[in-house]
Order: sequence, then C-alpha cells, then structure tokens
Amino acid sequence: MATNFYQKIYQSKKSSARLGIITTSHGKINTPAFVPVATKGTIKALLPELLKTIKTQIAIVNTYHLVTHPGTDIIKKAGGIHNFSKLNLPLMSDSGGFQVFSLQMKSEKLKVKSIKTNKPIANVRSEEHPLVVKISDDGVKFRSAYDGQLIEFTPEKSIEYQLAIGADIMMAFDECTYYPATYKYADKAMKRTHQWLKRCLKQVDSEKLKVKSLKLQNISYTRYLYGVIQGGTYEDLRKKSAEFVCGLNTDGIAIGGVSVGETKKEMRDQVKWVASYLPADKPVHLLGVGQFDDIIDLVKYGVDTFDCVEPTRLARMGTLYQVKNEQLRISSSESIDINKAIYKYNLTLVDENCDCYVCKNFTKAYLHHLFKQKEILGYTLATYHNLYVMERFFAMMRKIIKEDKI
Amino acid sequence: MATNFYQKIYQSKKSSARLGIITTSHGKINTPAFVPVATKGTIKALLPELLKTIKTQIAIVNTYHLVTHPGTDIIKKAGGIHNFSKLNLPLMSDSGGFQVFSLQMKSEKLKVKSIKTNKPIANVRSEEHPLVVKISDDGVKFRSAYDGQLIEFTPEKSIEYQLAIGADIMMAFDECTYYPATYKYADKAMKRTHQWLKRCLKQVDSEKLKVKSLKLQNISYTRYLYGVIQGGTYEDLRKKSAEFVCGLNTDGIAIGGVSVGETKKEMRDQVKWVASYLPADKPVHLLGVGQFDDIIDLVKYGVDTFDCVEPTRLARMGTLYQVKNEQLRISSSESIDINKAIYKYNLTLVDENCDCYVCKNFTKAYLHHLFKQKEILGYTLATYHNLYVMERFFAMMRKIIKEDKI
Repeated sequence: MATNFYQKIYQSKKSSARLGIITTSHGKINTPAFVPVATKGTIKALLPELLKTIKTQIAIVNTYHLVTHPGTDIIKKAGGIHNFSKLNLPLMSDSGGFQVFSLQMKSEKLKVKSIKTNKPIANVRSEEHPLVVKISDDGVKFRSAYDGQLIEFTPEKSIEYQLAIGADIMMAFDECTYYPATYKYADKAMKRTHQWLKRCLKQVDSEKLKVKSLKLQNISYTRYLYGVIQGGTYEDLRKKSAEFVCGLNTDGIAIGGVSVGETKKEMRDQVKWVASYLPADKPVHLLGVGQFDDIIDLVKYGVDTFDCVEPTRLARMGTLYQVKNEQLRISSSESIDINKAIYKYNLTLVDENCDCYVCKNFTKAYLHHLFKQKEILGYTLATYHNLYVMERFFAMMRKIIKEDKI
Repeated sequence: MATNFYQKIYQSKKSSARLGIITTSHGKINTPAFVPVATKGTIKALLPELLKTIKTQIAIVNTYHLVTHPGTDIIKKAGGIHNFSKLNLPLMSDSGGFQVFSLQMKSEKLKVKSIKTNKPIANVRSEEHPLVVKISDDGVKFRSAYDGQLIEFTPEKSIEYQLAIGADIMMAFDECTYYPATYKYADKAMKRTHQWLKRCLKQVDSEKLKVKSLKLQNISYTRYLYGVIQGGTYEDLRKKSAEFVCGLNTDGIAIGGVSVGETKKEMRDQVKWVASYLPADKPVHLLGVGQFDDIIDLVKYGVDTFDCVEPTRLARMGTLYQVKNEQLRISSSESIDINKAIYKYNLTLVDENCDCYVCKNFTKAYLHHLFKQKEILGYTLATYHNLYVMERFFAMMRKIIKEDKI
C-alpha cells in the first residue's frame, strides 16, 4: 500500500473527526472534503476553469455513464479523463455498481410493464433504461439501449474500465443493496461484494498496478483503489463488511449503499456502526451523501470525503443554498427556490452572506429571470454558487475540527 | 448631435470601407465590429466574464423580449441592463420593431388556423405567439401570451422602454417590411418608419435627452439614437429612405429589414443602393446580418457594425466555425457540425488554426460527446469559440482595411 497517499494531520479529541491530506498525482486534497459529481466528464453547466475559483479539490466521474458514452476507448486514447475533459484536479471514478444495480430495479419494473401491456420490452423501455440480461456472481450483463451493444460489468471489467478512464482513485466493483432489502439479500450482496473486492485487488495486481503507476500517452501517474463496505441496514452485516474490507490491502475505504432511500437516521446508523473499524491510516469516502445536516455527524464518525449530486442537481432546478451566518454552523444553511414569483422584483444579491462571484454580481431578480426563461446562464450561476457554498462549508468544518469545536 | 460619439480614423482608398471609433460611457468600439446578440440580457450559455477574453466590444439586447420578460420596470430599478445582467460593455438595444412585425405575420397565420380548425385563437397559439390586437400609424398593440397583459409599441413607448433598459445606443421604432412585400406596402411602411423616427427624436427631446445623459441609480451615462433606413427591396424607396433618415439629427444610422428572407444578392443590393447617402461622421449599423461572406462586401459599402444571432445560435446547434488560414480571408471560414459521428474518435482540437481557450484545450471528440449527451458545457464552449472567431475575423478586417488590401 502506498503510504504517502493519505496522511492524518490532526485527530479531534472529542470524536473520530480528523484532518488529513490525500496526495494524488493531480494534486492534494485537504480533508474533510466535498467531491462534486462530473457524471459524464463534466460538472454539469460549469466551465472546468471555474473550479479553481470555487476551490473545488476533487471530483468524481461515473464509470457506467462513461462506458456507454463516449466509451472508455476514446478516453484512454485521449490520455485519460483528466486530459479528455480538462478537469485538472484529482478525480475519483465509481465502480459502476450503483448505476448497474439501480438499472436492474428499473429493468424489473419494465418487464412487469411489458407483460401487462403485452408489448415487447424494447417498446416499453426508454433510452435511459437498458435491458439487464444476466446477473450472477460473476457480474452483470446488459444491453445498451443506445446501440444494442452488450456491456458487461464484472470486477475485472470495472477495473479495466476505470483504468482506461484514468481517474486517480478507483472504487472496487460492489453490489449496491436496494432498499428495503431483506437480511438474506443484504447478506448475499455483501458476500458478493467481498469476493468482488478480492478479484478487483487481483486484477489491479495482474495489471502490474502494485506500483500503481500507469502510463497513458506519456502521462504517468499513480492510481489508488478503495474497497467498498456494504451490508444494507443490518448492523451485524455492516460490521462484518467493515472488518473484511478494512482487513484487505486497499488504499482507502468507501462506505456504499447508505443513500438508497433510507431515512436519515438509518443512513447515519450505517456509518456509525462501522466507525470503530475504520483505519487511521487510510482515507474514508462516503458514497452519495452530501446534505449539510448529515455531513457534520458523519465527519464525527471519521468520514473524510463525500460525493453527492445534490448541490449541482438542485442548482439546475433553481434551488440556491443560503448561508445564514459566518460560522456556517450546521443547520444554518437553508435554500431558496429562485423560480418563485416573490423573487421577480428582489434586487438583493443571490446570497448576501456569500462572497462568491455570483453573489458579488447578480441579484435574485436576475437569476429568477434567467430561470423563468430557461436561460443556460442561470444553471451555470446556480451551480457555481452552490458548489462555492459547499467548499466554504467544508473549509469551516476543517477549521472547527482543528479548534476542537466539533 | 454628440460629436465625440463617432470618429472616423481611416478611409479606405479603394472602397467606402473605413476604420472608426465609437465612444460610449461603457467603453470604446473599434469599427468595423461585430455585435453579438444578448436577447434577454444574456448572451446565451456564456458567462459575461468570458466576454473579456473573447474581446467582444459591444452586444445588443432585444427590447421586445425584455419588455415581456423580465419587464422594463425591474431593469430600470436595477440601474439599467448593464447593472442587471453584468454585461459590462457598450450595449445597443433594438426598437422592438422587428419582433413586433414578425409576430404580426405569425398572428395572421394563427387566425387562419383558428378559422380552419374551428378553435378559438387562444387554443391555436403558443406562448411564443402573442395575439396582435391592432396595428396603426400610431403603433402596435398586442396581448402577451404569458400573462394576457396588453403591450403597446409606439415610437414613444419604444423610446420609453429603451430608456428604462438603459443600453448605450437605442434604435428608433421602425416597421420592418416583411418579404416579399409589394411596392405599395414597402412604401407605406417606409413612410410610417420616417414619421416614427421624427416622433422618436421628439420623445428623446421631451425626455430632456438632448444632452443625452441619463441617471439610473446614481449611474449617469450618455445615450445615443440611431434612425433606421427601410424601403424593402425597392431601390428608389431605399434611396428615398436613406436621404430622409440621414438628413435628420440622429447619432447614427441603421439599415433595417435587409435580412428578412431575401437572397444574398438582394440583401447586398439594399445596402449598396444607400451606400453613397451614408454620412462620413456617423456610425452605420446593419441590423441582423453576420455571415462571413456578406460582411466584407458590406464593409466596403461603409457599414461599421453588424449584429446577428448566427454565431451563437449555430454554436448551440453544434456548428463550429473553422478558420482555414491565418489571413482569415473571406470565404476562407467554414464550419463543421460537431454532432456528426465522424467526430466521435477525432482527438484533434476543435479548430487547429484557432488560439481560443476552447481550441487550446478541447478536442472534437470531447465536444461531440458533450453535444450528443446534451451537456450544457458543450453550448458554452461552442458559443465561446464561434464568438472568438468572429472577433478575430473583424480584427483581421480592420487590419486589411488599414493596409488598403480590402
């Protein structure tokens, strides 16, 4: 394991919260840190240049989406996703597991619809719903609805795809348990995930990635693999999974499947249960969680990084985070829906407590106008602001951890 | 008339082409110059900050659109369109005439559809097609399809709206002749336009704008009025109109109605006929024309500024200008449709002869991917590139005028 990858620099005296530095070939990340989502190789509506002024430290791309579009061959030829998309910052890729298994559920629903309507399944599914052909211990096969291509996700394939994509941090292929899942199913999915993690490590090994250095078009950089803890909403399974995953030789630990439809309490419990198993010398990532009120509790359990579509997705719907005070205390952040008619004549800045480019320049009335007219600039400005608020929020959290005020 | 507004700095020896400087309170414009369209107070898909690096000198907003959304009252309260939309550069506003009269035609078609389908007109018209209630020598009245509000465009109202919007350069209210128009109609519309120009001048006068200084939220700046030459496709009418408009005390001259459905030859003829009437001491604007091959001929007739939606609209459709050589000679610029499958694996830069931010960073394959996935970033990058090419094209044209190579 690369020892220079993660360095803990401060341990809170009051909780498992900690400060750390993740070092990648594309830059350092001060943790705790937020990881915005760049699904298809772009943070939607945002020029990559703007990430510098937002001070975004790292982003995550989705392997499933990139495999289907534009395909990993072209990304590899371009020298990897950093070069292809000019996201010049540390990047993570997910394993594809989450999307593949959520497609499975949609696929089942479509089969039911197909039988009920007496229509061939091809006629009831949309472009977004490829047809899952086979799920087994080996992996998942499905047909792309775009071009009929048979796509396979196995642990080995997931690593192969992620190597081609070329993000700095990869996730081992996992089965994301749907919710609510029976104990039996959660147990089966967890065991599968463990076997798959061993296969991912072996694949990384066979690709001579023990030194974790890859050359893509004369660009060499080191890559890291995280194992994913699963186990659904069951305490004993989560602990068993944590014990197993943390016992293997991965570079980092991810916690998966906690954001799929559960209550906030259940979600937090799933992290709390595994907290004592999390290693001091490896970074911990929580997949798919990013609401303000959750983050501070989860940081206390030792989570270092969080990815979530919420700030960017909400932005494109016109939901703008509002910072209530300088301390950015939890539950001090609220949001407004800029589409509402009350903002039509409101000439105050988007958020008067925010010092971002958007808030220094634009009024609520202007953003309201842009959203009502579906002007693209509205989505850009809202995305910029919400990501900026997230960065300030995490910067403040790092500060209060250091001051032992968390 | 303000004498410092326009200054001719060089007259070509070979044609009526000339170099000039237009000075406004928001900056200077070196002419010939391109005027991108910011219809509703935003150049679609483009952060206003980016205009600096593109070197855009001036933009135009559409009065009709701003009157309906967000309404001129809020723009005025915000301190004018520069402040509202942070378009920190010289701005023009059109008179509303073009949109109002093209709506008239759509409105007529809807009436026919209403009779044929036996449906009330409210049911056959879309949001984009307000119902024209009355057209007279006084002006036009119509109902906004958004909220049923009765909106009136008269010469006085157009000036009132444009004053509230607060662009640096205003256009007198004109009747834009549809194509093909009979001689009789073109003559009638031209005479109406002349009467309306006199009323606009009077309105400007009554608003104490002889000094052309307006105070909006403590921001004082000078504003200018252009008269618009009409006359359809008829040589004698165009000349008569040029003589009339150029004889009045406006700050600049615009040529209107030349882009409405005519052939390129007819369009160029309409400018050629009036060339000898154009004053040496006032800037000349051509409304709605901006294709590369047209521009150089029209510059030779003495046109200084051109507005056109084409570079930005084509960009959002995936049409990217390609610069064929360093000299940017006319007909040397072509375009590609980045949606085409041939670009899926093309890792060359968007335009290898262009040095813009987009072309220094992104490949055709990446832009193809963005467009196929309808990613907003694609529209932004394409818009940036096309406007950058336009600026380089005009910069080269100013250079060759100076060298008398035009």
